Amino acid sequence: MALIVQKYGGSSVADADKIRNVASRIMTARKRGDDVVAVVSAMGDTTDMLIALAHKISAHPDPREMDLLMSTGELVSSALLAMALREMGQEAVSLSGMQAGIRTEARFGKARITGIDPKRMQQELQAGKVVIVAGFQGVTDDLEVTTLGRGGSDTTAVALAAQLQAARCERFTDVEGVFTADPRLVPEARKLKDISYEEMLELASYGATVMHPRAVELGAVFRVPIFVGSSFSTAPGTLIHGGALAEPAHKVRGIAHEMHVAKASVLGVPDRPGVAAAIFAPLSQQHIRVDSIVQNVSSDGVTDLTFTVAQSDLPGVAKLLAPVVREIGAKGWHTAEGLAKVSVVGAAMRTTPGIAARAFRALQQAEVNIEMLTTSEIRITCVISASHVPQASRALHRAFHLESMEDAGESRLA
Amino acid sequence: MALIVQKYGGSSVADADKIRNVASRIMTARKRGDDVVAVVSAMGDTTDMLIALAHKISAHPDPREMDLLMSTGELVSSALLAMALREMGQEAVSLSGMQAGIRTEARFGKARITGIDPKRMQQELQAGKVVIVAGFQGVTDDLEVTTLGRGGSDTTAVALAAQLQAARCERFTDVEGVFTADPRLVPEARKLKDISYEEMLELASYGATVMHPRAVELGAVFRVPIFVGSSFSTAPGTLIHGGALAEPAHKVRGIAHEMHVAKASVLGVPDRPGVAAAIFAPLSQQHIRVDSIVQNVSSDGVTDLTFTVAQSDLPGVAKLLAPVVREIGAKGWHTAEGLAKVSVVGAAMRTTPGIAARAFRALQQAEVNIEMLTTSEIRITCVISASHVPQASRALHRAFHLESMEDAGESRLA
Repeated sequence: MALIVQKYGGSSVADADKIRNVASRIMTARKRGDDVVAVVSAMGDTTDMLIALAHKISAHPDPREMDLLMSTGELVSSALLAMALREMGQEAVSLSGMQAGIRTEARFGKARITGIDPKRMQQELQAGKVVIVAGFQGVTDDLEVTTLGRGGSDTTAVALAAQLQAARCERFTDVEGVFTADPRLVPEARKLKDISYEEMLELASYGATVMHPRAVELGAVFRVPIFVGSSFSTAPGTLIHGGALAEPAHKVRGIAHEMHVAKASVLGVPDRPGVAAAIFAPLSQQHIRVDSIVQNVSSDGVTDLTFTVAQSDLPGVAKLLAPVVREIGAKGWHTAEGLAKVSVVGAAMRTTPGIAARAFRALQQAEVNIEMLTTSEIRITCVISASHVPQASRALHRAFHLESMEDAGESRLA
Repeated sequence: MALIVQKYGGSSVADADKIRNVASRIMTARKRGDDVVAVVSAMGDTTDMLIALAHKISAHPDPREMDLLMSTGELVSSALLAMALREMGQEAVSLSGMQAGIRTEARFGKARITGIDPKRMQQELQAGKVVIVAGFQGVTDDLEVTTLGRGGSDTTAVALAAQLQAARCERFTDVEGVFTADPRLVPEARKLKDISYEEMLELASYGATVMHPRAVELGAVFRVPIFVGSSFSTAPGTLIHGGALAEPAHKVRGIAHEMHVAKASVLGVPDRPGVAAAIFAPLSQQHIRVDSIVQNVSSDGVTDLTFTVAQSDLPGVAKLLAPVVREIGAKGWHTAEGLAKVSVVGAAMRTTPGIAARAFRALQQAEVNIEMLTTSEIRITCVISASHVPQASRALHRAFHLESMEDAGESRLA
């Protein structure tokens, strides 16, 4: 008998029938003999509806009031799920973030969990109940309701699993697991049986719909095994973990891509301390997230500096760059849009030379031009034209034989 | 500068425009220099929607989960109202029942308030904020969310006014105040400027839409003046209070009526101790509210016992009476439906003889037959055929000259 923390997303609890379906799945775990803590998101598009309602009242709603408003969505789905379980003869209790003992900092809209008092949850579990916890929310020491921001419910689930020392965290959504590439682009993409935390984080650009990166990071820190699978089928999903791994046959584990990328270049930047700060500080102040930064080798005391941003941030970037370029005495600047990123990810890349060369050759053969290039220890990312993403993804998938089932990595947990 | 507690019902906060309208009304009070605590109900038919949602999951939803579910409706309207006030430049904060310090017993669905810790509210008021409190809810000592049942938000408002020693409680809804009779039945009915708590309680049958009797009782105990008026107009409303009154010219203050009444009679009841209990205990166990009980003078050791119930409870009554009648050895029983009650209410009736006689004469002249009769110190209630209610109401209204504006009672607070 183990303790499992399950997380069900908004699409899994979108109506009464789906809530009953979730209750049935929890019953299955109970019948296996497991204790269950279930974290739920708000039903379907409830959160969007609440946001729309707030915006009818105020263009910039007060964050504190916004959090109180938003927190109601998860309370509703939690209470309904508890009712559905009781209807099936299973004792259950729903807890708000406050009742579940989830304490956060007082940063509304994006609070981080500072601690969890598990007493109430443990009492209810000991009484034989399924504990339903409203995801995405907590309270400050002053009992102010906060929400955790993006990936909030995923984060709630992993944090509870860590605090309660659960055997694992299971995340059910409308996606069946982690694939070697987006199956809509690469028909031969395969579902992975398992993947490491760090690989999952690097795959996050499309992986975010599977498990939010913030929750994966938390899982990595506290070594919580995270299972991701579909709430509508019993197909096996993917286990995200950090276990001691057998050497995988595939050095590359997956191909990720991200659309709607733009880049900006500042040309002829004087190569002296402080210029990078002069360029990026104003962007940061406007909450524009700069993604990859590439600086060319300096010649004659000047350098070119290129970085990527989300397409939607490009107008803001253009507005901020003009005065900065004058101020630092750069020669000029230009921007380009309609770009995308394609990444090759695999933890074994660290110790395996030649991966980059193979990737570049594959892209070249597919006649995909690389506009910009960045790497991490376990990832190679190419910025390319958005229109080339399908052929680039397929070419990279083929180049690393990801369609092949002979993947020792698939049985790393065996 | 006074502290006012205002209460806005669900129809007053049914959409974004109406919430803005409520915010404007609160601003008016602030500009007068008053501090405001505003208690709000859930938007429009939110509560009904939540109940319907729960019933899709369970025919008999768990009361504890039901309360957590229902409490979200008032959180939503509270947060939105706080946003609307901030949008108008007025600092405001919305508080859940828990945050407002409202403690209740652990009776889900119909909890009573056991205490209010006003600290947080007082801090926010001192900081110059309008305090919005989610009505209808509180928490137990174990931080379980409870709802207060029928009239819950009205009760919240009066309880807060009592605890905070507010100058008065103002209740805004879609009704303009308390009338001498239902204007739909009696066109010449007038709005009263003021009325006593006890008169209001006796008028409650149609007055419940103005202010819930439970809240009026609480107001009476703590001597909280309660103003009721329309949230959509600036027409003067009615003040419910217990002040020392000048002698009113009108001994009768209003005519109330209640539809959907049924009566049941048990005939030839042996006149010995314990029979009344034998009849009414089973009804009480089934939560059937017995309204008026009349026992005829006993002759030959037997008596007839007649009582009224809500029409909808009649099938339950019939089922319970048959075995009881056999058990106590009564001669038989019968029931009648399609009845109604018409009441004449006025505190001065206590000291004024002849009111009953005048009422009976008026009904007789209107050819209304009285089926049953009960009185309190300040009320005379006649059970009549439902079809006679309009002519009976008009006849009584005329008989006591309630259409006349020369009402010293109208200026009792001058």
